[in-house]
Amino acid sequence: MHNIDDVETEETLTCLRITVHHPLHEIKNVFQLIHFNKREKHMVEDPLKVGRDTKSCHISLYDLRVSRVQFSIQAFRHFNSSKLFFEIKNLSKKGKLIVNNRELEHLNKVELPKKALVRFAEFQLLVEKEDGESTESFDTFFELARTPPWQEILCAPSMSPIPETGILINACTVPQQCSLQTPVEMEECELK
Amino acid sequence: MHNIDDVETEETLTCLRITVHHPLHEIKNVFQLIHFNKREKHMVEDPLKVGRDTKSCHISLYDLRVSRVQFSIQAFRHFNSSKLFFEIKNLSKKGKLIVNNRELEHLNKVELPKKALVRFAEFQLLVEKEDGESTESFDTFFELARTPPWQEILCAPSMSPIPETGILINACTVPQQCSLQTPVEMEECELK
Repeated sequence: MHNIDDVETEETLTCLRITVHHPLHEIKNVFQLIHFNKREKHMVEDPLKVGRDTKSCHISLYDLRVSRVQFSIQAFRHFNSSKLFFEIKNLSKKGKLIVNNRELEHLNKVELPKKALVRFAEFQLLVEKEDGESTESFDTFFELARTPPWQEILCAPSMSPIPETGILINACTVPQQCSLQTPVEMEECELK
Repeated sequence: MHNIDDVETEETLTCLRITVHHPLHEIKNVFQLIHFNKREKHMVEDPLKVGRDTKSCHISLYDLRVSRVQFSIQAFRHFNSSKLFFEIKNLSKKGKLIVNNRELEHLNKVELPKKALVRFAEFQLLVEKEDGESTESFDTFFELARTPPWQEILCAPSMSPIPETGILINACTVPQQCSLQTPVEMEECELK
């Protein structure tokens, strides 16, 4: 056992809380390879790959509509900042990736905001960043959502004030053509 | 043998021409693991890692001053563009990476301009991009330079017009504190 004097000062880790949803998850068991409610550590240097291929992906989704490698999330640091930020890149040649209101084609990438709704095939992932101190590694923490996360976002009062002019790009604005197969009332939601 | 009718139309590949220099390359043989003057293909999805570690790096440099993984170069596409672009990210915790005039610390990243001078330890790499059509893979092509590439850039007439105001960020502006151990006349070069 280490003497506590010899151990390096413990740093808190930035955590990506990822709340996942799939309308048929109970039937198709698409999340069978995900370890829910458990912090998992990742080195900042390695892109976190999400897709169907269990060999090359850190996070595997058991669904034929998902590409072998669907997307990656990568840590980086802005100049003169010690905080970790993340970028998401679409690695699928066939499928679009929608991050909040933005459609990403193959090799398009965007910086993840503090709270982002990521959608592809019938999947919805709400990715929320909790800042930590370490710049060596970060955690992921997966939770399962029974209802689509974007509905929860819609219900949260005044989370996304609608500007009088300009385009609102946030998790609330779910374009209809990109929404799930299950029809949902969109009245309160600004359509694209 | 394939019938030519069945074969997919050949696409030209974007190529990163990388001209490398190290003042002691003949003595220390730091480039012994590089395949010079040979096009090598890389998939766009995979970050191209450069460093000392032969297992995790695609391009290995045989020098103890180089970090296990020094940096990565990654392909991406801007929105509404079919061209490949590249980003360089410093993955070394100990060493700075200088891209043209910009110092990158651990996890800092910048987009590579068409022509970029990348420096770390005593290495200089001139990275030049030649555009191609394919968005599936790209080539690298390594050449050895006997003289430091930035000297060549300095000598090229009016390649880098100096603006009357503002900061000139290009390969010509080599900050002295970051320059090589071999002292070089800097008269014509704008110092940081």
